[in-house]
Amino acid sequence: MISKATLGRMPIYLKYLRSLPHSTPEISATNLAKGLDLGEVQVRKDLASVCGRGKPKIGYRVDELIECVEGLLSEKRPKEAVIVGAGKLGMALLDNKGFSEYGLTVTKAFDKDPAKCNGDVLPIGELKSYCSLHQIELGILTVNPESADEAAAEMIKCGIHAIWCFTSLNIEIPKGVIVQYEDLALSLAHLHNRLKNEK
Amino acid sequence: MISKATLGRMPIYLKYLRSLPHSTPEISATNLAKGLDLGEVQVRKDLASVCGRGKPKIGYRVDELIECVEGLLSEKRPKEAVIVGAGKLGMALLDNKGFSEYGLTVTKAFDKDPAKCNGDVLPIGELKSYCSLHQIELGILTVNPESADEAAAEMIKCGIHAIWCFTSLNIEIPKGVIVQYEDLALSLAHLHNRLKNEK
Repeated sequence: MISKATLGRMPIYLKYLRSLPHSTPEISATNLAKGLDLGEVQVRKDLASVCGRGKPKIGYRVDELIECVEGLLSEKRPKEAVIVGAGKLGMALLDNKGFSEYGLTVTKAFDKDPAKCNGDVLPIGELKSYCSLHQIELGILTVNPESADEAAAEMIKCGIHAIWCFTSLNIEIPKGVIVQYEDLALSLAHLHNRLKNEK
Repeated sequence: MISKATLGRMPIYLKYLRSLPHSTPEISATNLAKGLDLGEVQVRKDLASVCGRGKPKIGYRVDELIECVEGLLSEKRPKEAVIVGAGKLGMALLDNKGFSEYGLTVTKAFDKDPAKCNGDVLPIGELKSYCSLHQIELGILTVNPESADEAAAEMIKCGIHAIWCFTSLNIEIPKGVIVQYEDLALSLAHLHNRLKNEK
């Protein structure tokens, strides 16, 4: 599987490859590394995991590389994820412009509080029909910890197989469903630790 | 330096160690691993990086371990971070309850828009006096990408050495300042990738 770090560099590769003049049909890993100011070993590893090995002494065809990276970022057909929990964090994620860079789109949040339902926030009762109509498999869970298990169960019932979970609890999920916990506080703690280590 | 993954497990260790009866003055890595449902190699590695090695055949003194982990999470004196940019994400982070688990506190956001300043949101003009009064070193940058460089420069001028940056751009910073970029979209893309790989 492609690592998160490699995946994170793909939008940068794509931007660079698209900026090359049409007179550059091929590019070597060495030149790509120079152009992107990355290590050559890094670039070879990234490309090998995404597009296989290049041809000896020639490198990669630029158009093929672009197609590979586009395929990975699935830009031709954005993958939609829905938010469950229209609190402050849910609304901030709904507002996030960065998802499209990875071929993702997040346009609707669902909440059980009717007072929050307006515009892009829909009642949780509509989650099932929305998910089946739009073939949603990815869900973002931003309810409070006390409601997390109940909301996750609802998401799974609606056909969601992968949950990006911002509550700090371990949520209960059946086998076959992927949960990825996002501990924002840990990221800040890690930065604090780096700062302490520099002193 | 302690890895982010190890750091992320420390609140779990601390909770468990504090729950032990007083009649348990010592604990072995083996028993700690059992109690926490973690691998023994993992536990030995975690503890070695935080508190050094235990005594052969005995393990660790529980009170010493607690002191070590507390020291790492600096619970006795929470470290304060400030937010610059009181948009939706900034306000969501201000509302996050999880920071205290890592001995961190985030209670104020700063913004240049006077209309946003109210309660825990202060005018950006007050950042300098606040940072020197409270000896702030950690800053959270949640302005929009266009204002990121300007806001980062202001933060650094106010004595902030480490910036947790949510804008997708590379911000300009002088040597000696640490920036940690948080690409939320990448996390969702990584989850999407894991889902594709399971199919």
